[in-house]
Amino acid sequence: MIGPDRRFSDLSTAEVESALSRDSVMVLPTGAIEPHGPHLPLSTDLTVAEALSAEVVRRSAAEGHDAWLLPALGYTKSDEHARLPGAMWLRASTFFETVVDIGAAIAATPARRLLFVNCHGGNSALLEVLLRELRRRFDLQTFIVSAPPIAGESEHGLGIHAGWAETSMMLHLRPDLVDMSVAESAVPKPVVDSTHVGFGKLIKFGWLSTDFAESGVVGDPTGANAEIGAQLFETRVGEIVAALPEIASFNPGRI
Amino acid sequence: MIGPDRRFSDLSTAEVESALSRDSVMVLPTGAIEPHGPHLPLSTDLTVAEALSAEVVRRSAAEGHDAWLLPALGYTKSDEHARLPGAMWLRASTFFETVVDIGAAIAATPARRLLFVNCHGGNSALLEVLLRELRRRFDLQTFIVSAPPIAGESEHGLGIHAGWAETSMMLHLRPDLVDMSVAESAVPKPVVDSTHVGFGKLIKFGWLSTDFAESGVVGDPTGANAEIGAQLFETRVGEIVAALPEIASFNPGRI
Amino acid sequence: MIGPDRRFSDLSTAEVESALSRDSVMVLPTGAIEPHGPHLPLSTDLTVAEALSAEVVRRSAAEGHDAWLLPALGYTKSDEHARLPGAMWLRASTFFETVVDIGAAIAATPARRLLFVNCHGGNSALLEVLLRELRRRFDLQTFIVSAPPIAGESEHGLGIHAGWAETSMMLHLRPDLVDMSVAESAVPKPVVDSTHVGFGKLIKFGWLSTDFAESGVVGDPTGANAEIGAQLFETRVGEIVAALPEIASFNPGRI
Amino acid sequence: MIGPDRRFSDLSTAEVESALSRDSVMVLPTGAIEPHGPHLPLSTDLTVAEALSAEVVRRSAAEGHDAWLLPALGYTKSDEHARLPGAMWLRASTFFETVVDIGAAIAATPARRLLFVNCHGGNSALLEVLLRELRRRFDLQTFIVSAPPIAGESEHGLGIHAGWAETSMMLHLRPDLVDMSVAESAVPKPVVDSTHVGFGKLIKFGWLSTDFAESGVVGDPTGANAEIGAQLFETRVGEIVAALPEIASFNPGRI
Amino acid sequence: MIGPDRRFSDLSTAEVESALSRDSVMVLPTGAIEPHGPHLPLSTDLTVAEALSAEVVRRSAAEGHDAWLLPALGYTKSDEHARLPGAMWLRASTFFETVVDIGAAIAATPARRLLFVNCHGGNSALLEVLLRELRRRFDLQTFIVSAPPIAGESEHGLGIHAGWAETSMMLHLRPDLVDMSVAESAVPKPVVDSTHVGFGKLIKFGWLSTDFAESGVVGDPTGANAEIGAQLFETRVGEIVAALPEIASFNPGRI
Amino acid sequence: MIGPDRRFSDLSTAEVESALSRDSVMVLPTGAIEPHGPHLPLSTDLTVAEALSAEVVRRSAAEGHDAWLLPALGYTKSDEHARLPGAMWLRASTFFETVVDIGAAIAATPARRLLFVNCHGGNSALLEVLLRELRRRFDLQTFIVSAPPIAGESEHGLGIHAGWAETSMMLHLRPDLVDMSVAESAVPKPVVDSTHVGFGKLIKFGWLSTDFAESGVVGDPTGANAEIGAQLFETRVGEIVAALPEIASFNPGRI
Repeated sequence: MIGPDRRFSDLSTAEVESALSRDSVMVLPTGAIEPHGPHLPLSTDLTVAEALSAEVVRRSAAEGHDAWLLPALGYTKSDEHARLPGAMWLRASTFFETVVDIGAAIAATPARRLLFVNCHGGNSALLEVLLRELRRRFDLQTFIVSAPPIAGESEHGLGIHAGWAETSMMLHLRPDLVDMSVAESAVPKPVVDSTHVGFGKLIKFGWLSTDFAESGVVGDPTGANAEIGAQLFETRVGEIVAALPEIASFNPGRI
Repeated sequence: MIGPDRRFSDLSTAEVESALSRDSVMVLPTGAIEPHGPHLPLSTDLTVAEALSAEVVRRSAAEGHDAWLLPALGYTKSDEHARLPGAMWLRASTFFETVVDIGAAIAATPARRLLFVNCHGGNSALLEVLLRELRRRFDLQTFIVSAPPIAGESEHGLGIHAGWAETSMMLHLRPDLVDMSVAESAVPKPVVDSTHVGFGKLIKFGWLSTDFAESGVVGDPTGANAEIGAQLFETRVGEIVAALPEIASFNPGRI
Repeated sequence: MIGPDRRFSDLSTAEVESALSRDSVMVLPTGAIEPHGPHLPLSTDLTVAEALSAEVVRRSAAEGHDAWLLPALGYTKSDEHARLPGAMWLRASTFFETVVDIGAAIAATPARRLLFVNCHGGNSALLEVLLRELRRRFDLQTFIVSAPPIAGESEHGLGIHAGWAETSMMLHLRPDLVDMSVAESAVPKPVVDSTHVGFGKLIKFGWLSTDFAESGVVGDPTGANAEIGAQLFETRVGEIVAALPEIASFNPGRI
Repeated sequence: MIGPDRRFSDLSTAEVESALSRDSVMVLPTGAIEPHGPHLPLSTDLTVAEALSAEVVRRSAAEGHDAWLLPALGYTKSDEHARLPGAMWLRASTFFETVVDIGAAIAATPARRLLFVNCHGGNSALLEVLLRELRRRFDLQTFIVSAPPIAGESEHGLGIHAGWAETSMMLHLRPDLVDMSVAESAVPKPVVDSTHVGFGKLIKFGWLSTDFAESGVVGDPTGANAEIGAQLFETRVGEIVAALPEIASFNPGRI
Repeated sequence: MIGPDRRFSDLSTAEVESALSRDSVMVLPTGAIEPHGPHLPLSTDLTVAEALSAEVVRRSAAEGHDAWLLPALGYTKSDEHARLPGAMWLRASTFFETVVDIGAAIAATPARRLLFVNCHGGNSALLEVLLRELRRRFDLQTFIVSAPPIAGESEHGLGIHAGWAETSMMLHLRPDLVDMSVAESAVPKPVVDSTHVGFGKLIKFGWLSTDFAESGVVGDPTGANAEIGAQLFETRVGEIVAALPEIASFNPGRI
Repeated sequence: MIGPDRRFSDLSTAEVESALSRDSVMVLPTGAIEPHGPHLPLSTDLTVAEALSAEVVRRSAAEGHDAWLLPALGYTKSDEHARLPGAMWLRASTFFETVVDIGAAIAATPARRLLFVNCHGGNSALLEVLLRELRRRFDLQTFIVSAPPIAGESEHGLGIHAGWAETSMMLHLRPDLVDMSVAESAVPKPVVDSTHVGFGKLIKFGWLSTDFAESGVVGDPTGANAEIGAQLFETRVGEIVAALPEIASFNPGRI
């Protein structure tokens, strides 16, 4: 049954064939179940990815666009937290093959456009590899929007994980799961101070969350609040909804 | 935060270490996103698996048992529907490696007991293989309860897929997603009539749902109703809740 | 050359093409080389699988049915004995790919029907997965008959491995390889006494043979004798021979 | 039970531990089930490998050497015949992992020496790779003896497959499976005449049996007879038996 | 022998142990062999990566830093050109395992720091995945510098492949391999004009080079010249040489 | 641009299509980066493979033959040196898949003939497996010439690695990388003295270089000199150049 939420998995087989077309945009939320410090739940990225995707689909549909919400991927590539309990991570190869299989399954429906709404940084690079893999193997048009790390002032650009923005977003979406009383700043000074190596600098580096702090946090959640969270969330939804029509018709076009 | 639902993914890392112990029972619902005829949604098995697992954990916790609900697996091994659109299936190897990775991740927490609540028949055999794989590789104690195919009278024992019992359960859990007006019986007479080959007979056989009927249904949903569904669901919950204490302490015991 | 035993591997290539047809039933015995306690040889399951399959093919042929005996698989999935010397076990993935390759090879002959005669419990679940894998990938009709665990009285339903039935069968088939003087009962009382968890109970569990006893035995071989073995063997042969014509013509039939 | 044939699979687990030692030589026959022309059975290589290995073990044991016969591998790497029906071939990766698993299993017994008696040319190169793989991963001492292609006069050095030597050997071992009335010579003249490229020449080349002849034969079986076969077989057995003591004590020795 | 070029592969084993230390920086050039339009050779990325890395190592060594040049990887992940002849591409999994193996091999030397100098955009995402994989599995400190796509004026930000910057660089490094007479602009207007989807825009997308133009070019090489190439090259070398000391001592530092 | 060296990677895509034909011979040098004792560099095999291949292509082209030089493979299968630092080895499966991918890429060009010029013994067996794999999967005509181990007098047939011939060749090609002052003989006497087991004897065996000597040398480099090296090199070049026309036209020919 086509519900107001346009959940793909609410459809029957027959509806898959009648309701979808080549330009339907399948929206796949990708989050994570992984350590997010003492103040946030393991489900943080999954919660945000699902809320964001659901809202985007709902609002796009209200505007007459043909988007569908796929069931989210929660178990993904959280190997940066491999040394902390609670990281429910898939090896790169397992996650890769999972997405390949999902791509093949989508290619067996009428739809040909797939948008990843990714809210876990640890997935971004591999999903970029997969954008092309699915394009090449199944002739899907593939897209990704990743939650950009947005840093608060005290984070010196390093609101990478469980910091100001992410915590604010959770205070907006699921305040019952946040415990600000144990939130602590963990901004790795060497990374802030480095000239060449670092996030967004010339030289990228490989890291595990435990390289920085035992808590797995990289950022400063202490100044987070729900209002900021609501704003960040709303901005993100708005951006993606605005992009949706272009995604639905995008064609790189041959010279 | 430990909520009343005891969702594992609501915990913080620190809580994973403090709240779980060797005899905690991690409950992993395994469903499917796959064709369920014209009258049921793709999400049928996932819906049932999640509802059943959540209720089992909730009620067990209320009785003082230490069970935790893991995020469900929705994309699983639905290769029997590979020739129908909407089957979001993983290859056997992909599903196998996914569960191996989840097993490894559980073994990195204090918990050592894992219960699969499986509501998709297509997963059963591979999950049985995995019970031992996780036992051997990670020294987990592993358990599975599978939704038994329960057949209505008109099904001649063949309420395998999208039939009387499953449809009733969905009428109980998510009536908004069921369209009984298009429900049709599809009981494969040759399988009913065979003497040696068949479900529960001496000789098992390999099948695709499309071997039987274009709809992917194997059973007769026409007589389904919500009351039966509520009974079946309640019975199942009761059985698993009753088994929980034994699962939490089970030790095959050396001679 | 087509011998009285109808061994596939006795054929020449030309004969493969002339003697086989779509409805030929290829019979593949699957056993194991694995610990069977102090009184039985490693080859127990392989011995039984080969003897059973050979007799089934011979007798079916005598009745005019078109069955062929494939070379048996002896190295299979015995991971439940991984911690005992002498278990010549393949990982699940290795065994899976082996059977996939054999399926592909059969699909390159005129034959389209494959019957596994499986006498090793550790293979059952994975072979069930493979029934469908071969059906889907190579359009073979696939079947399996598994040796059911038959328990003697003193086994309380747990004649799982190297117990009364298996030992009796070996006393019938290869008495020279059995040493009853060292046969000892090893029936795991906790499993007998459990209410919910156990073989054939609501909750299945993952186990290694060494979870129960150092000997790897799960059952009570002490009362075994050749006469019982002959009866069990004869019964089994009879059942499969009776099923053969149905296997050769089975068609689940579209509604 | 330790029989006169010293079959490893006749042992019980306990006997594996008591009867084997570091210098036991495990003998693994590797054959093939594959096309051997119109006059020989698919099982040719397997038949020879098993007969040869069994005789070597028997005779070595009679001379007081500690050799054990493992169950033969029949399904192996026959990809050169992939385009002919009846080739029951494993992909290179499947065969590789199979032998790795067997190596791991042997390493779990007291034995540390493994001799492949290989009678299928298509396995030789991959088994050489595996000699080192098992040496490195499991610290086994590994050895191989391969049936050398012996050419009859009319074969111009090309008695590669199903030719004079192999046919003679089968006439000695299993005359009931040979049909000399359909034996035909198939010696590929271009290979005979080439100067640089060819078997045993400077440049080796990749080939499929069907590159040469539809029958899959490469050689001239027409002059084969049982007497020659007996001689070839006896010579081979003698050579390996003579080598056995050196294999059992071989130590490359550090400088 | 330690040459002025500090090529790792010029060392003997003994020198590997004596000359390298934990803070040696191993520099691994990663290029590609793939279509670069009608005017550039397949080797373009490999040529640039090797030249850049060699110069960086040479100059760093001259300044007293401990960098070593590894043999370049030329066959890499060029799947975006999979539909053009001359793309010598590895599947993602093959390239992944290759780099894993190289990481393991480096971990067997005294060195613990690895810098990828990547000049092929198609490798960037997968190498980012590998940065972490090698960090986690082998405890290496891993770094990457990627050639940023620098666009000429006429390219509207799309100097992605075989455009102004890359062509200029080749005119500087290997003018003998460039044929400017056939250089043609291929700037995909739809991508330039899109608001949301595109390189460096909110929504990234999966593409094959043949989605844009038959030539595989994405950019405008027509204004390229050697002087610009020399400047771009020199700038890049300077940046990396300046970063080298930080790479050699970088430690994210625990809070 | 087609240079005098006929390097494939110097071509543009368009040239790949115009310059190559079905009978072009693609020449792929396969070397290694691995321990070669205290007197030779890690790059020895790669150096020789590249020099040899380049000279063969150059001279063949001068004689009017259509050969092309592919970029060499340096990271290959050096697992025999896995226990020495500096061995940059790929697992068998990684090397296998690499060559499969290269084969697929060649099959996407007009060329159909591939010649491996292999100068690392550790690759030989796996490349032989690959000859057939590429023949079967991509219908390429595949060829290999391997550097034969040539032994000096003092080596008793064991000039396997870093010995007289290889050292001489390097003294000819790259004297700057050889340090004869530390060259030491390491001829494993047990292997020389064995009757049945050994290189080129009836029984082949699995070995690691560290089974023989800590240096990884198997041979006696002390008598090596550049003149011998020049002769050996020249002889080898001559042999392959002479074979080239036959390789370019070789057709095993159906009977």
